[in-house]
Amino acid sequence: MGGSLLMALRQRHPQIRLGIWARRQEAIEEAVCHGLADFASTDAAEVAGRAGSIVLCVPVDRMKEISLAIADAVGPDTLVTDVGSVKKRVVDELEAVFAKDANFIGSHPMCGSEEAGMAAARADLYQDAICVVTPTEKSRPDMVEAAKNLWGMVGGRVAEMEPGRHDRAAALVSHVPHVAAAALVELVGSESPDVRKLCAGGFRDTTRVASGPAELWTAILALNRDETVRALDELIGLLGSVKDALADDRLKDITRLLAAAAAERAKILRSAK
Amino acid sequence: MGGSLLMALRQRHPQIRLGIWARRQEAIEEAVCHGLADFASTDAAEVAGRAGSIVLCVPVDRMKEISLAIADAVGPDTLVTDVGSVKKRVVDELEAVFAKDANFIGSHPMCGSEEAGMAAARADLYQDAICVVTPTEKSRPDMVEAAKNLWGMVGGRVAEMEPGRHDRAAALVSHVPHVAAAALVELVGSESPDVRKLCAGGFRDTTRVASGPAELWTAILALNRDETVRALDELIGLLGSVKDALADDRLKDITRLLAAAAAERAKILRSAK
Repeated sequence: MGGSLLMALRQRHPQIRLGIWARRQEAIEEAVCHGLADFASTDAAEVAGRAGSIVLCVPVDRMKEISLAIADAVGPDTLVTDVGSVKKRVVDELEAVFAKDANFIGSHPMCGSEEAGMAAARADLYQDAICVVTPTEKSRPDMVEAAKNLWGMVGGRVAEMEPGRHDRAAALVSHVPHVAAAALVELVGSESPDVRKLCAGGFRDTTRVASGPAELWTAILALNRDETVRALDELIGLLGSVKDALADDRLKDITRLLAAAAAERAKILRSAK
Repeated sequence: MGGSLLMALRQRHPQIRLGIWARRQEAIEEAVCHGLADFASTDAAEVAGRAGSIVLCVPVDRMKEISLAIADAVGPDTLVTDVGSVKKRVVDELEAVFAKDANFIGSHPMCGSEEAGMAAARADLYQDAICVVTPTEKSRPDMVEAAKNLWGMVGGRVAEMEPGRHDRAAALVSHVPHVAAAALVELVGSESPDVRKLCAGGFRDTTRVASGPAELWTAILALNRDETVRALDELIGLLGSVKDALADDRLKDITRLLAAAAAERAKILRSAK
């Protein structure tokens, strides 16, 4: 995520000076060699002190640690944001760390690949990606604008949402669909292999996300545990009601659900334009 | 399905004489005008008596009626097959109707669109479509070969499967994924509209099939009721076990399931080549 952000900024806004921090010296040298950093250090506070905007590109469970390391060095009008895929926890933790100047605004650019590291970075990663910015009532309006502006600068489509709403939405549109896709594949996998031959285009589309990396997705589900459990519960309830309607021959109830879903999906496709 | 079959045969095998039966005279005239039929009648027995192979393209609940109407006219070495999307019921019914010469072999070409009628017909509908042929122990080997040959002639990829296995497989690879996709969309639909903005490419792929026509899909689910209820039950159980593992923080169990699903999906994609 970080490497792609540097590439996108360098390509689209070459006048902007870019700095990076990384734990490993080699990662820094790679970015500098590629012309992606004007200043760099393995000392996070040193980089943070020179920055006008800071994007934390570390795993969600490392956000607090790195924030504490840079908090005293961050200037009073410096934006701090992140790329974490869950927001309530991150925003609660980091608003507290950056409370003095209220610099922190949560972000979740909904893009990224299974691969990590500079080798997987690409300048168009954020192009047309939905980038959610999650202000709270504590947020400074100028920082909210700065965060939205940042994602717009790399081609993102900016949406604004309260952190808890984001996590609920992410469970519904991403985390639970992932579990459902994996479960559908696993049902086929527990049959004998002749069933595989019948998996046509529809099945392949429905289950595409189930090819994602298992450990990364386990971590995402665990970070958004409460909302994922809640939404899974709702999905199970809805599937149970379809099953009962089918077993009881209440076919109009099934038609009503399928028609409502088709209509809602049309609205979703329109809202994405 | 019938119109597309005529077009495909006419285009690929112009030497074959084609005949059609339809309930409405206008449907027959349309096919004749398009050069798709060499003989035609609204009297099914008359058409069946002249045919060397017969494909029944009527809804599953009409198969028996049309079969009874033609049974006495069908020659002793004439193949009779169908395009119904469930097979156990159809094969049981029609094997009984055509018992004397054992002409009937069930088929399910896994293709077709929401639209019906000649206007929706296209010559490449069967190209690369999985065409399942479902013989039983009563089937004549020469008729099984004739059915497989027929679908191969229009570009289909032929698979062979016992009728009950076909219905189990169809529930797993098509009917239950359809219900799951509709349920995932419906969960988003029951939230406020802000969630729609976050539905990115993954969600759109996972739920693509949910845009299908509600009444047609209700009929398909009802025809394959027993297997669909059974597979829905299995899906609900599997989702419940993921939910419990997540709630109990048994993350290794979740990783194991997601990794198994990703591996199975890779096998499915390979087996489709």
